[in-house]
Amino acid sequence: MNKICIIGVGLIGGSFARGLKKVNQVKTIIGLGRDKNKLKTAQKLNIIDEYSTDFAVVADVDLILIATPVNSFAAILQSIKAHIKPHTIITDVGSTKVSIMQIAEAIFGQIPDNFVPAHPIAGKEKSGVEASTESLFEGKRVILTPTDNTAQAAIQQVRVLWQYVGAVVEMMDAQQHDDLLAMTSHLPHILAFALMDYLVANNPQACDYAAGGFKDFSRIASSDALMWRDICLHNDDKIIHHIKGYQQTLSQLIELIKHHKAEQLQSLFANAKQNRDNWLK
Amino acid sequence: MNKICIIGVGLIGGSFARGLKKVNQVKTIIGLGRDKNKLKTAQKLNIIDEYSTDFAVVADVDLILIATPVNSFAAILQSIKAHIKPHTIITDVGSTKVSIMQIAEAIFGQIPDNFVPAHPIAGKEKSGVEASTESLFEGKRVILTPTDNTAQAAIQQVRVLWQYVGAVVEMMDAQQHDDLLAMTSHLPHILAFALMDYLVANNPQACDYAAGGFKDFSRIASSDALMWRDICLHNDDKIIHHIKGYQQTLSQLIELIKHHKAEQLQSLFANAKQNRDNWLK
Repeated sequence: MNKICIIGVGLIGGSFARGLKKVNQVKTIIGLGRDKNKLKTAQKLNIIDEYSTDFAVVADVDLILIATPVNSFAAILQSIKAHIKPHTIITDVGSTKVSIMQIAEAIFGQIPDNFVPAHPIAGKEKSGVEASTESLFEGKRVILTPTDNTAQAAIQQVRVLWQYVGAVVEMMDAQQHDDLLAMTSHLPHILAFALMDYLVANNPQACDYAAGGFKDFSRIASSDALMWRDICLHNDDKIIHHIKGYQQTLSQLIELIKHHKAEQLQSLFANAKQNRDNWLK
Repeated sequence: MNKICIIGVGLIGGSFARGLKKVNQVKTIIGLGRDKNKLKTAQKLNIIDEYSTDFAVVADVDLILIATPVNSFAAILQSIKAHIKPHTIITDVGSTKVSIMQIAEAIFGQIPDNFVPAHPIAGKEKSGVEASTESLFEGKRVILTPTDNTAQAAIQQVRVLWQYVGAVVEMMDAQQHDDLLAMTSHLPHILAFALMDYLVANNPQACDYAAGGFKDFSRIASSDALMWRDICLHNDDKIIHHIKGYQQTLSQLIELIKHHKAEQLQSLFANAKQNRDNWLK
């Protein structure tokens, strides 16, 4: 590929650029954003070749990767729209896919054939370009959620770029993606945020008596608040559905503890342990 | 100290013995348990000096450390009772303290003056003597929950042993301990077990799409099922109280998401992040 533009050179956008630089498969990587200083830093770190704060630069690129928080997606698509060429591929890295595609439909009248929605299942609790690494996506899954109308050539191009940075690419329906991620990513993050909130509200000193288990359990509560706000707002129904389902699981556990159902408690814990140990393998 | 007996040479008992061996402050460490092979292993690993499967050995020791799952506590105290000398110090490492003390009271008629209930806040998701290390307690808190009648000399002896293995010793009321640990340890473990259970019940393949955050979050779901069953049964009221409180926090979050309260969501997440980041320091 000749020229790509990464909008939002943070943890994900920066890691994508670093990964591509490593395999030398893109001639020019342009960083686009609002903050000139951050872009300058990225250029100094040799993560991007050029930078701009003007959306006009997208007129000249083969592919645009949108790697900003989900909530800015509408404004960014709107800004792109004025400059983009029909053949330019658009892709993103948003953690939610249904709402992203609805926004694209609203702005372009229909979901553009060259728009390939994507979500790399990789991250860190740290954000920003300084936290980016060339190996962030190695061996990690990237889910593409194209529609029936999405151009096969565009899908193929996006797939190949992700493979260049070491990712394992998979395709899925956007609804299915959002439901799955609500369970495996959004729910755990919300549980960790809620636990910190609950502990501090009950006893500000409580955390002093927490051990290593708590440290790992709560790691994702150190994630970016703005990003998680956006995910909650964009995948609201599915997240609420799974929080409620999880509350029911907790209620069942309360009943087991209340009535001292020792055997059932032990088997529930043992199953959880076995499933987690199997997953690790 | 001349001779101590560790009942249950697993992760905690084994790490305690290893720590004491390192600083060479106890002449003889006797391992007591039901499984001769495990005790032999511990002796070969130089974790204990001698071993026995006969409770009569406790007649001859200065201090007994009970490091078995909480549910076996009553049977062990009963077995000790027939052999113990009045001056022998008894201590334990149980994760719950109120029920332990009630059991001691029931068996001895009153809580023995030489019984110093203790709980080291340290652990691993792995169990067994093979997982034990001499540094497990270094810099970790150990909470002692003596009564007003507990002999000061006994408290002092137990304190010193824990300091030998690198722990920071603190004293607390048993009720306060159980409430605090229900929040900072029991609740997170239950949340992790419940999450695994919920995910697998909903979609057995879900975990395939989980990332690093999930790995850390769920680590404590790989903990020992028997031990956690016992903790739930022995600290039932306080654990139920905090699961219910946590469910309310989740319900508040559902409301915020449902009504798209962006600002409040963001500030809740930001507070959680800040509290967690502060705790890490």
